[in-house]
Amino acid sequence: MYQVDLNSDLGESFGHYRIGMDDRIIPLISSANVACGFHASDPVVMMNTIELVKGAGCNIGAHPGFPDLMGFGRRNMSLTADEIKAYTLYQISALAGMCSARGLSLQHVKPHGAMYNMAAKDYEMSKAICEAVAEFDPGLIILGLSGSETIRAAKDCGLKTALEVFADRAYEEDGSLVDRRKPGAVIRDEQEAIERVIRMVKEGKVAAVTGKDIPIRADSVCVHGDGEKALLFVEKIKKALSEEGIEIRPLREICG
Amino acid sequence: MYQVDLNSDLGESFGHYRIGMDDRIIPLISSANVACGFHASDPVVMMNTIELVKGAGCNIGAHPGFPDLMGFGRRNMSLTADEIKAYTLYQISALAGMCSARGLSLQHVKPHGAMYNMAAKDYEMSKAICEAVAEFDPGLIILGLSGSETIRAAKDCGLKTALEVFADRAYEEDGSLVDRRKPGAVIRDEQEAIERVIRMVKEGKVAAVTGKDIPIRADSVCVHGDGEKALLFVEKIKKALSEEGIEIRPLREICG
Amino acid sequence: MYQVDLNSDLGESFGHYRIGMDDRIIPLISSANVACGFHASDPVVMMNTIELVKGAGCNIGAHPGFPDLMGFGRRNMSLTADEIKAYTLYQISALAGMCSARGLSLQHVKPHGAMYNMAAKDYEMSKAICEAVAEFDPGLIILGLSGSETIRAAKDCGLKTALEVFADRAYEEDGSLVDRRKPGAVIRDEQEAIERVIRMVKEGKVAAVTGKDIPIRADSVCVHGDGEKALLFVEKIKKALSEEGIEIRPLREICG
Amino acid sequence: MYQVDLNSDLGESFGHYRIGMDDRIIPLISSANVACGFHASDPVVMMNTIELVKGAGCNIGAHPGFPDLMGFGRRNMSLTADEIKAYTLYQISALAGMCSARGLSLQHVKPHGAMYNMAAKDYEMSKAICEAVAEFDPGLIILGLSGSETIRAAKDCGLKTALEVFADRAYEEDGSLVDRRKPGAVIRDEQEAIERVIRMVKEGKVAAVTGKDIPIRADSVCVHGDGEKALLFVEKIKKALSEEGIEIRPLREICG
Repeated sequence: MYQVDLNSDLGESFGHYRIGMDDRIIPLISSANVACGFHASDPVVMMNTIELVKGAGCNIGAHPGFPDLMGFGRRNMSLTADEIKAYTLYQISALAGMCSARGLSLQHVKPHGAMYNMAAKDYEMSKAICEAVAEFDPGLIILGLSGSETIRAAKDCGLKTALEVFADRAYEEDGSLVDRRKPGAVIRDEQEAIERVIRMVKEGKVAAVTGKDIPIRADSVCVHGDGEKALLFVEKIKKALSEEGIEIRPLREICG
Repeated sequence: MYQVDLNSDLGESFGHYRIGMDDRIIPLISSANVACGFHASDPVVMMNTIELVKGAGCNIGAHPGFPDLMGFGRRNMSLTADEIKAYTLYQISALAGMCSARGLSLQHVKPHGAMYNMAAKDYEMSKAICEAVAEFDPGLIILGLSGSETIRAAKDCGLKTALEVFADRAYEEDGSLVDRRKPGAVIRDEQEAIERVIRMVKEGKVAAVTGKDIPIRADSVCVHGDGEKALLFVEKIKKALSEEGIEIRPLREICG
Repeated sequence: MYQVDLNSDLGESFGHYRIGMDDRIIPLISSANVACGFHASDPVVMMNTIELVKGAGCNIGAHPGFPDLMGFGRRNMSLTADEIKAYTLYQISALAGMCSARGLSLQHVKPHGAMYNMAAKDYEMSKAICEAVAEFDPGLIILGLSGSETIRAAKDCGLKTALEVFADRAYEEDGSLVDRRKPGAVIRDEQEAIERVIRMVKEGKVAAVTGKDIPIRADSVCVHGDGEKALLFVEKIKKALSEEGIEIRPLREICG
Repeated sequence: MYQVDLNSDLGESFGHYRIGMDDRIIPLISSANVACGFHASDPVVMMNTIELVKGAGCNIGAHPGFPDLMGFGRRNMSLTADEIKAYTLYQISALAGMCSARGLSLQHVKPHGAMYNMAAKDYEMSKAICEAVAEFDPGLIILGLSGSETIRAAKDCGLKTALEVFADRAYEEDGSLVDRRKPGAVIRDEQEAIERVIRMVKEGKVAAVTGKDIPIRADSVCVHGDGEKALLFVEKIKKALSEEGIEIRPLREICG
């Protein structure tokens, strides 16, 4: 029996500002990555997001980011390991405590934006993140890029890991994502994207941008809820996965 | 046997900015009110503060405040009950999670600055704060002003309460603090201040600003660590309390 | 010849967050109230807004607000006169400097949200705002509520004033706005709203919520660009004003 | 006749947080670099700083920084040229407007912290900064590191430039500062530091860390006011300069 998790970044509204169609993407996914107030969100948005996630029976994870609301956490910042560790611990603690007030427990942690990308290539930054997670709760799952320093550091910290794949991104032969600035970095054909995901799940393989097949493990597929088109794509991929006998299961069960 | 807690607001540095002599006041007190990143502090300061508190064997409480770093949480803000509740839950969750990563558990919650003062007179605001605390951990103690709406709301929420007194402040006949803008609001004579505290603890009485004795319960005395003079006063009051056979004990034991 | 200004609050996006249809409302109005980075906006948004306003030949004003991005400047804050004055001066200076880099000069200042509402009833706060404006540039126009303390303070500071009316709001007999929480506070019938505006401009009168006619001066009508419906209404009101021989002219000309 | 400017970074307090001894360093220097609210300061602090600078007859410059209060603007951030330009223009506009309300005009701009260091090696970032300055006021002086990309970009933008030297820092043979992490990077002997400055001013030479003399132009010496020791050093260097017949003159006159 094949199975895979569907995850999405959400809970990213802030104060008067609304983004994302959280009420519509949450029922479609199995794991929600919830912003924690640094790169996006605020405590009221977090409580509302937790209610939505709980109401849909979805699983919840922390999506900590850089303290850069103006840049949505997408701008590289040179932070010390102590800073990274404290910022991560603060954010996952805040979300976890709010969840516990609603009877939910955190399932996983996935760094956001520039923190995700920098950490993927920086073992020391990844280690700071994973130490914070392990010190807070060694039962949490780190959701990260296959082959990344984040996954390596998570294992070194004794954490469970889940590998994330992207339906709409091309891969290099070494399993890393093709830089968005390069041609062919984004898979624009929806049918092709869906077929790639199915093959990643069932065969553990994907064609790299060079054409050569490479091995890849797909524990979770990242999907988006920021527009009608994105939501439609999630429905399509869910239907296709179902027809292929692939069950959508939360990370908790996949990496249990 | 008489006993009383000594509490102090600390952990209020931010980034490059340092205030307070935390390393010197912490060993002198039994309960530390630690800022949580809204009106003051940041995650790195919080971790350092937790280490200091733990090292001294002191007890730790959350000191949540308004989201107003520029005003140090001392400016009134008109927030909805939902906002107050979410802001409180976020802040105590963040601190509690960081504490748990160091093997500490929260003892109490004391609102900061304008949140403390507004809530003291506003039952709805107090209720929002206390609901957040009770939903997070019903075993936490609310540290508040004697006779305040905060204490009333805490009881209504089933929380333990501890009453805070001020050595250097005069009281009205109804037990409220004399407004700082009125003459005689501040007790400037150190010896007088110390004697008042001793009487509050041993006799449960204090002379109001009018001269009339009023009943008062002193579970905890608020002291300051923001200068040499303040630290000296803490040492003096500790010596005097000891000579009077009054033991310094944490809130945890006093309100247990 | 009748004339009136149309103003709208805009430039309120922030970082990754977009709100308002600025590119569509700007060509329809004569005066733009541009957020300055405290309650909304950031420097990049401000530059883009200035370019849009300039491109449309629209006039520009500063829309300073409270330092409360999380509350969009809509929450009352108790600030000192020194704080209000410095916050206002900072914000109008920032916007004016950016304008001058694009060859534009500020036309007016209109306080935002809670600052607008609090100042309308608070002469001291209004005075702090108007002093900041007068010290920066005594030629600027204050756009405020008819009969408000803001207009009184502006006159006392030697500033030109422009009176703002609302198409969709009911008035008390004293010329103040009916509280939004009261029945009948909002005029929901578009045709009625338009007719009221025309009468305010041509006759200087409006029917108060009690039914009694009161005198009112309408220098500028506040309109909104936050949705298709709002934009359509602006087009309707412009058409109706034109048919009545009322010209849309910027504040600069009306209060010159 | 020899002359040199003395500059210092100040006005860096924020809200309740005080740093620096601004009232004591300002009378000792000829040019003040004033923080503008991004990496440090707030509008009230800025007004107070402007009053101090004006009262001392000192000259004022803007000290714009990254939007990173938590990191005091000392952490590298990857910002686009548009962001850098808009952030710079916003900050200098805000300060300049506040100055004009007090009858002062800006003399110069010196980027702060990580913005200073990154820009020194990054022509594109320097160009974004200098374009903002030139568009705001082409008469402003850029104060930067000798041999830096900032100075090159400033010249390309038609701005006047002033070269800053450091009394307590060692230089590489190419005129760049020796990395702080390398041995010998900091000149700890005060007498040596003073003699180096005098030689830089009078002979236009300094011994690089290798021992070899290199040419250097010293328009301004950066001094600090963050402690008694720092203030004493400023007094010593002023006395030594005076004894050598070197006059302290503001940048305005040196680069006029």
